[in-house]
Amino acid sequence: MRDLLPDDAATRDHVLSAITGVYRQFGYQRIETPALEDIARLRSGEGADNEKLIYEVLRRGLPPVIEEGTELASLVDLGLRYDLTVPLTRFYANNQAQLPTPFRSLQVGPVWRAERPQKGRYRQFYQCDIDMIGEPSVLAEGELIEATVAALSAIGLDEVTVRLSDRRFLSELAAAAGIPAENSAGFFVVLDKLDKIGWDGVRTELAGLGLTPGQVDAATERIAALTDLTSAKLADVVTDALPGLRPEVIEDLAATAAVLDGLGMSWAFDPTLVRGMGYYTGQIFEISSPGSASSIAGGGRYDNLIGRWLGRGVPACGFSIGFERIVDLLGNPVSREALAVLTEPGVAVADALAVARELRQGGRVVEVIGRSGKLGNQLKRLEAAGFTAWLSLREDGPVEERPLHT
Amino acid sequence: MRDLLPDDAATRDHVLSAITGVYRQFGYQRIETPALEDIARLRSGEGADNEKLIYEVLRRGLPPVIEEGTELASLVDLGLRYDLTVPLTRFYANNQAQLPTPFRSLQVGPVWRAERPQKGRYRQFYQCDIDMIGEPSVLAEGELIEATVAALSAIGLDEVTVRLSDRRFLSELAAAAGIPAENSAGFFVVLDKLDKIGWDGVRTELAGLGLTPGQVDAATERIAALTDLTSAKLADVVTDALPGLRPEVIEDLAATAAVLDGLGMSWAFDPTLVRGMGYYTGQIFEISSPGSASSIAGGGRYDNLIGRWLGRGVPACGFSIGFERIVDLLGNPVSREALAVLTEPGVAVADALAVARELRQGGRVVEVIGRSGKLGNQLKRLEAAGFTAWLSLREDGPVEERPLHT
Repeated sequence: MRDLLPDDAATRDHVLSAITGVYRQFGYQRIETPALEDIARLRSGEGADNEKLIYEVLRRGLPPVIEEGTELASLVDLGLRYDLTVPLTRFYANNQAQLPTPFRSLQVGPVWRAERPQKGRYRQFYQCDIDMIGEPSVLAEGELIEATVAALSAIGLDEVTVRLSDRRFLSELAAAAGIPAENSAGFFVVLDKLDKIGWDGVRTELAGLGLTPGQVDAATERIAALTDLTSAKLADVVTDALPGLRPEVIEDLAATAAVLDGLGMSWAFDPTLVRGMGYYTGQIFEISSPGSASSIAGGGRYDNLIGRWLGRGVPACGFSIGFERIVDLLGNPVSREALAVLTEPGVAVADALAVARELRQGGRVVEVIGRSGKLGNQLKRLEAAGFTAWLSLREDGPVEERPLHT
Repeated sequence: MRDLLPDDAATRDHVLSAITGVYRQFGYQRIETPALEDIARLRSGEGADNEKLIYEVLRRGLPPVIEEGTELASLVDLGLRYDLTVPLTRFYANNQAQLPTPFRSLQVGPVWRAERPQKGRYRQFYQCDIDMIGEPSVLAEGELIEATVAALSAIGLDEVTVRLSDRRFLSELAAAAGIPAENSAGFFVVLDKLDKIGWDGVRTELAGLGLTPGQVDAATERIAALTDLTSAKLADVVTDALPGLRPEVIEDLAATAAVLDGLGMSWAFDPTLVRGMGYYTGQIFEISSPGSASSIAGGGRYDNLIGRWLGRGVPACGFSIGFERIVDLLGNPVSREALAVLTEPGVAVADALAVARELRQGGRVVEVIGRSGKLGNQLKRLEAAGFTAWLSLREDGPVEERPLHT
């Protein structure tokens, strides 16, 4: 966890304001859930490995000395959220009567994970999620991708690439490779490690799942055949490779492909794209950018999660921007225009404030600062603090404004 | 703790944006500290009663069953912050080398207090604080009050009143009443209860502090004499009533009075204003508004707190807006202009998204929604969801836009 200094916060405010401005135009409305959730809900199994990283909160009113044999878990009733998706499922179950269908949700806020300290990983970090709840068609997928590409473009990330896959496709791929449906999650986990362990590692681990060398070859060859497909060939090649795939999966791929083609953007079908969470049920997607080794946004459809607390299926699809990664990528490009009113000793406070008030009329940032030390040194400090101009305020009035050369 | 629905979040975003826009013009820059702080720092004694309301976080990696005689406190290393001031003291100590003097800090964010549930009290709520660090003169007090009055005006709260007092004045008042300096905190606590227990209660409790009936009379008569003073008489009457008061206290009061007079606003010196926290060292102030029984903003000078972790005095002065109170006061005045594109079955997703994209060019909020059920009912639902216009999108293209009458 770390402090955000003024420059950090200004950059983040600028990025967030640009992203949320775009999302709002698509109809996404901001909601907010509390940072603390019931520990049982956080441990419901949908958080995968994140459930091991929960900051746990003690029940209130416990005695100062714990009885022998007390289980640690019995002392805890709340935890800090590790993502914005699990809280969203509770939010929707609690508030659905007051929400439209489809409901376009925008969430921006901190989440907490008790990670071991390492470079680029924070224990408190921001997530920025949009979700469309109640829309069964790939209108959701298409719009989420379009809106997120537009949001990234608004902050200057124009050269992005979208990668697309489908969990239903991956399940069929696993089945065709000889992996029974109930073990397909294991296949996903192995494939998801491709970036880290390479094809040799994937082959070894697939063999570990009980596949024969022939089955491993068949699976990896299928994946190779489905890589780098043009949009025009996608439907045919996927159908040929996996004849058992239901037609709607192909139709959905074609519809999303048409949206991506319509946007005139760089994209690819990626049969090795898995994404970590277990709850995805349909299309999954990621966005990458030249400056970043890992993806800068990711999401997908998860039709069985939102309805969990409602006892019925509720279609849903979400996209999450890796906010911290983007901020790191952009650096600190925001500067401010600020005028320093350097007040000489003897000037009455009310007079200094009145001069500054006048100067603020046009909307400028104006700070009143007491004169101290050598003028040259103070002007250098003002420059370093981001001031762009200054004027001297004496007992007989203000002296002409001058620029601070940077 | 509660969820914020889209209307709630929109109102809060509107209010925050207006307030921070004003504060930024005065040169306040947003910073952010983590929600979690070391439990020892949160329990350092400056949080007064709030220290009893901390959400405590378990250490990570504890064994699942507690050993005999384990103290609860030994299981805890972090806590959720209960205000933004204690974290600010750590922030300044850690980061002062990178901060200008004076440093104008703006903090907006949630704090947590494990309060018993009651109407209008939340366990997670937002605070909005500005602080000027490193400015010893009442330039800080005057500007903080001016900026906060301007911020409240920007959200439509124009009819506010400022109440002003000074802890140095209150200490002298206590001394003059016969209370030794080391017990003046007790005097403040009693006077602070005036709203709740009335003058009779105050008299009884002052007697309980060991004052004779004559001393109690002298103290309350002094306070009565100092109530409802005009700005012109303030310095003279305070000097007469408390001849032992140091001249700079009077000068500071006169300087802040001149600022408030210069703003042409409603204000009063209030000898019964105390404010709860122990750390104030100079002027203290509150702002009240006709619609709210309690004050909507409060603050003061606290010269001994920021330097606590630095081993030296650092002058500081802060003002905190009661954000939740203000939002409750304003209601939900924000509405949105949104166009619904009602898409008939059979329209390709890519086409629907392209039509919406075109309509968004001018900056409008445009949502794509599938046609479903009876049109009249769907239009009613759209109205209820805040849409102001709609159009029908058919396979042969869009039909003319129409307003939704509300």
